[in-house]
Amino acid sequence: MAISKEEALKYHSKWKPGKLEVLSSKPCSIADELSLAYTPGVAEPCRVIHKNIDEVYNYTIKGNLVAVISDGTAVLGLGDIGPEAGKPVMEGKGVLFKRFADIDVFDIELGTKVPREVIKTVQYLEPTFGGINLEDIKAPECFEIEEELIRTMEIPVFHDDQHGTAIISSAAIMNAIEIVGKKMDQVKIVISGAGAAGTACAKMYLQLGVKRENIYMFDIGGLLHKQRGDIDKYREMFARDYEEYHTLAEALVGADVFVGVSAGNLVSQDMVRSMAPKPVVFAMANPDPEIKYEDAKAARKDVIVATGRSDYPNQVNNVLGFPFIFRGALDVRATKINEEMKMAASIALANLAKEKVIPFVIKAYGGKKFSFGPDYIIPKPFDPRVLYNVAPAVAKAAMDTGVALKPISDWDKYAKELRERLTFSREIAEAVVDKFSMRFDKKPFFKKAEKKKTIAKKVTPKSVNKNIKKKNTAKPKKVVKRKVARKVKSKK
Amino acid sequence: MAISKEEALKYHSKWKPGKLEVLSSKPCSIADELSLAYTPGVAEPCRVIHKNIDEVYNYTIKGNLVAVISDGTAVLGLGDIGPEAGKPVMEGKGVLFKRFADIDVFDIELGTKVPREVIKTVQYLEPTFGGINLEDIKAPECFEIEEELIRTMEIPVFHDDQHGTAIISSAAIMNAIEIVGKKMDQVKIVISGAGAAGTACAKMYLQLGVKRENIYMFDIGGLLHKQRGDIDKYREMFARDYEEYHTLAEALVGADVFVGVSAGNLVSQDMVRSMAPKPVVFAMANPDPEIKYEDAKAARKDVIVATGRSDYPNQVNNVLGFPFIFRGALDVRATKINEEMKMAASIALANLAKEKVIPFVIKAYGGKKFSFGPDYIIPKPFDPRVLYNVAPAVAKAAMDTGVALKPISDWDKYAKELRERLTFSREIAEAVVDKFSMRFDKKPFFKKAEKKKTIAKKVTPKSVNKNIKKKNTAKPKKVVKRKVARKVKSKK
Repeated sequence: MAISKEEALKYHSKWKPGKLEVLSSKPCSIADELSLAYTPGVAEPCRVIHKNIDEVYNYTIKGNLVAVISDGTAVLGLGDIGPEAGKPVMEGKGVLFKRFADIDVFDIELGTKVPREVIKTVQYLEPTFGGINLEDIKAPECFEIEEELIRTMEIPVFHDDQHGTAIISSAAIMNAIEIVGKKMDQVKIVISGAGAAGTACAKMYLQLGVKRENIYMFDIGGLLHKQRGDIDKYREMFARDYEEYHTLAEALVGADVFVGVSAGNLVSQDMVRSMAPKPVVFAMANPDPEIKYEDAKAARKDVIVATGRSDYPNQVNNVLGFPFIFRGALDVRATKINEEMKMAASIALANLAKEKVIPFVIKAYGGKKFSFGPDYIIPKPFDPRVLYNVAPAVAKAAMDTGVALKPISDWDKYAKELRERLTFSREIAEAVVDKFSMRFDKKPFFKKAEKKKTIAKKVTPKSVNKNIKKKNTAKPKKVVKRKVARKVKSKK
Repeated sequence: MAISKEEALKYHSKWKPGKLEVLSSKPCSIADELSLAYTPGVAEPCRVIHKNIDEVYNYTIKGNLVAVISDGTAVLGLGDIGPEAGKPVMEGKGVLFKRFADIDVFDIELGTKVPREVIKTVQYLEPTFGGINLEDIKAPECFEIEEELIRTMEIPVFHDDQHGTAIISSAAIMNAIEIVGKKMDQVKIVISGAGAAGTACAKMYLQLGVKRENIYMFDIGGLLHKQRGDIDKYREMFARDYEEYHTLAEALVGADVFVGVSAGNLVSQDMVRSMAPKPVVFAMANPDPEIKYEDAKAARKDVIVATGRSDYPNQVNNVLGFPFIFRGALDVRATKINEEMKMAASIALANLAKEKVIPFVIKAYGGKKFSFGPDYIIPKPFDPRVLYNVAPAVAKAAMDTGVALKPISDWDKYAKELRERLTFSREIAEAVVDKFSMRFDKKPFFKKAEKKKTIAKKVTPKSVNKNIKKKNTAKPKKVVKRKVARKVKSKK
């Protein structure tokens, strides 16, 4: 079902403008309950926290509260449209955090785009939040902002535009390379797009075992090479010594993998045909991929294709990452989301794709059956097992790397809690949505019949087509290195 | 029913720590709905807002979203306990905003108490919010912060600790003075407490017609007078020329009104006896008033007594103000909450106390009947008519003073919308609370039987006992002046 502009505007404006609602999570309808929520009852948790600041996690929502923060400088593919115009996206991110991982979000759109001011403001917000999700901040400012915040803050800071695509596409690439029977340290990768997503992807692929000399990265000025003179410090590590290829087409000849995080229709069928046997094409620009799924598949039969679109197989969607990564990080009170945690998320996703698809997912996707292979290299966004697999993997990696302040000891109990949490969260959400739907249109927004047909369509990623990139110390540390090594080995 | 520390801690920690929950207000359970909430659907409202920034009010929650912002320097009576320890109070404020006026709140606790930094941070938050409620920021910093934010921001900024008690106690004083048959321009008022609340009260009493020379203000150093040498610019206007009285007891001899916003048990029965005939005693320190209600009443029969406590008549409670003031301000998109709007709120409250109490309120307060008189000079917090009276009064005052960007033309329609809004909001809240209550304790926090008995007890104000005060240009402007003049006249 295509979405019209009118529907989109109606959805955002009708009954109550916007998409979020802040409610009390505790009984508060009678005076005695209010006197627990406010004075005099509230004084007691204040005193307890004042004595031991860590208690803030036990008596407030801080531990489950993530700030989605943007300055509106790189919103979707729309560019620097300002914080107000970016607000619908940030509220939407809040909806996804809640829907997929029961995380409460305050979206914060900032009236400054000066990195120093953004940094200070976010630092001042630290007492309020359990985590910071930076969003839609343009490069290169986003690198400086994220780097400084990670360095100075005691709560996890994560710029989804940088790391989301990297994590999800890494999972997909691990599986694709395994399926085609190649070796990570031998594949030649051509990346179109040297922004936040592109550079973050490249860095993560290095951790998977890809050799730096086998990566060719293009931006709007062509191949990144040292003689161009316009390569900043964030992109420097991927610049070739000289201009080996003048065009993307030249570079793709004999390439094993194409990764597109740039713009639509840059890759032709001939270019796909020129690639090595059993090539992997990730055309993730959104909404128009670098080459259409059907065109790439029509070019040659041995190609594995992924896009950012929900209406084709192998959707590389950021929503497979951020809700669960933060869930895991919050649940062990991680002070960072480090490289090992990102890699753990990626590996968990890759592994999940190899498991038998559960009936819930088959039903959700209209009865279509999936199994690990060229057209199912990555789990579906609506698969509830993503939460149950990714969150614990991230939590474990945080513990293994010493950034978890509240380690989990009973993993079975944690798994049970995750299930309960999601079930309960959805019950609450349904209760509210049912009420709102009534008010909204005196009926659900989509009719029941449509609901059945369309339950799993059209969840599309948004940040794959942005031209920003990330800072990264890049060296895989020992724990994940081991896991990656094992992983890569198993694919040989 | 008294509240134990254990209950208070359990309420704040059990099942889900804290008191707030951020949910989607739009249907979002299936993929098609999510593709409206996020990409690709979300792009359209972004584009519309980018073209015309005012559209942010039509497609996001900005217009119904208030930031409750604190630096944790003056939390309840607990002092500078820090932002984390203040968080339960700010979340509680969010609960009250929602419960009484369906306003969504993000509570923001700041990790800085440098006024310049607080100011800049709040300014940067402007794109996100429709209004700013400053809370629990200590004097004198709070004056500078509020003043500068009001001057520079296009959305209403309101420091409840300064103005809340002023507005509510002004309503109570108008009615009390009317009942005792005195004239506002002749009464002698002694104020104990020269902080935020005390000075804001005094300034508002001037607008009611009280003469500055009839106000005697005390702080911990005794009477405010110019020879003390420690009077800052914010308190200067209430400093007497010399130390006319050495003690509160001396000042109270022959006084018509005592206003306490200081500390418990400062006023004796003898002091009350020394006051003028038919004295008015507002002992609003919390939880222990300057003199207990029963002690003041026992001292003499002709006294009118108000306190901050819910367990006695005439509770002066901030919750009678801020939810409805912001409701009115948001609904006409006011750029300020000016003196006229505050006064309009006060007058609306005063007038409502003269109306026949509706059965809902009588029922809510255990069948007890109230009528305008010494023991009912101000409406009860749970009276739903407070919303229906105060919000439109504030909205009108905003329009009359030219600060309303979106004037209301059909007041009957607005009244209907307010009723619908509150009903619907409570239905949603009940649905959620019911679910949470189940999870919370497999039963409501208070048992049904207790609920009936206690429905209207124990909602106590919190900011009446704080030692901070406010900036105020103080001169009543013409519209409200007229209303006040009429009001004061009618009491002669």
